[in-house]
Amino acid sequence: MIDETRIARRGLILILSSPSGAGKTTLTRAIAGDSSWALELSISVTTRARRPSEIDGQHYHFIEREAFEDLRARDDLLESAEVHGNFYGTPRRPVEKVLGSGRDMIFDIDYQGTRQVRSKLSGDVVSVFILPPSMAELRHRLERRAEDSAETIERRLANARTEIQRWSEYDYVIVNDDLQAAFKSLQGILAAERLKRTRRTGLAAFVDGLLAEGDGA
Amino acid sequence: MIDETRIARRGLILILSSPSGAGKTTLTRAIAGDSSWALELSISVTTRARRPSEIDGQHYHFIEREAFEDLRARDDLLESAEVHGNFYGTPRRPVEKVLGSGRDMIFDIDYQGTRQVRSKLSGDVVSVFILPPSMAELRHRLERRAEDSAETIERRLANARTEIQRWSEYDYVIVNDDLQAAFKSLQGILAAERLKRTRRTGLAAFVDGLLAEGDGA
Repeated sequence: MIDETRIARRGLILILSSPSGAGKTTLTRAIAGDSSWALELSISVTTRARRPSEIDGQHYHFIEREAFEDLRARDDLLESAEVHGNFYGTPRRPVEKVLGSGRDMIFDIDYQGTRQVRSKLSGDVVSVFILPPSMAELRHRLERRAEDSAETIERRLANARTEIQRWSEYDYVIVNDDLQAAFKSLQGILAAERLKRTRRTGLAAFVDGLLAEGDGA
Repeated sequence: MIDETRIARRGLILILSSPSGAGKTTLTRAIAGDSSWALELSISVTTRARRPSEIDGQHYHFIEREAFEDLRARDDLLESAEVHGNFYGTPRRPVEKVLGSGRDMIFDIDYQGTRQVRSKLSGDVVSVFILPPSMAELRHRLERRAEDSAETIERRLANARTEIQRWSEYDYVIVNDDLQAAFKSLQGILAAERLKRTRRTGLAAFVDGLLAEGDGA
């Protein structure tokens, strides 16, 4: 039996973005945690200090500012950002290695990171924007998770109004009204993208093999 | 509950092509016959004589040669072909009407028709090429369906070797080794394509609605 997965292909980068509370983190965990999809997570580099709860090389690669500048100068970062004076970035080489071996990755980055990655690996990026069904539901979810102060929730909602407008830069848009339906949509997107001709680098050889074989006549 | 399907979108044209015996007809019937996908079939016009088993307006619109030439002169055919001196074509206006109303269509045409439709409605076309798992299996399927003479089977196999090479013009490629798996792949492609931002013409209004609403504060 010819397994579709036995025809070589180039991996893809799945990027989910959403305003906070719309479900990006939940959906990312759901699909990254489902081993049948075999998605690899990218490990970022950062110049910020390691927290006691973090393991170097697992949560982040903790590096010096100078090493970060070196990576950036060599164009070896797919995307980078500065947050509160610390630098974060995604090294390019490990990603290229994973994609070249036909495995897929999932990135948890915002629209600015998405733009940067797309500018460097445009054919490899599959970007999905998650929208909430309503602002009232978004508020309800932020309140329900009870992680944040009232003030933080208000700030997140104000930010959400800006972030929501980034939907127009993404390949796919899912309205996350029902988590299970949204997860199913996400899986459909990933399954379909794996069948795209442009990613299936082994098809030419497969077809050559078909044409070379006898046909049992 | 926000149903994804309640956000307006432009319909798409699903095109399946394959060498004969690879499964195009079976897969087309399977997805067209599954009413949950609500795919509409295009009804071609033809200049050939109606057969007693055919109904005008259902199997084809049977028209005079002059009417056909008129359609073509007005650029009102998405694709057309001549077969054994008879002309066949897909009128553009009914298709535009269906797509504009957010419904999807399925076309059963070859690579030449696909090229023509793509040149006229490129953003609306989702093209899928079906490959057989092996030439031996293709022969086996052609023999098993027992419709054709040995001579016809040989001709079909010879044609298949040419047709197979058209895979490189399609958006997606499915190797039809197991019909159920191939059908699942096809459904994943259709589900994903419906979520493409560029088709979801109602999203801008949906997001405007989100931003206009109060958030329950």
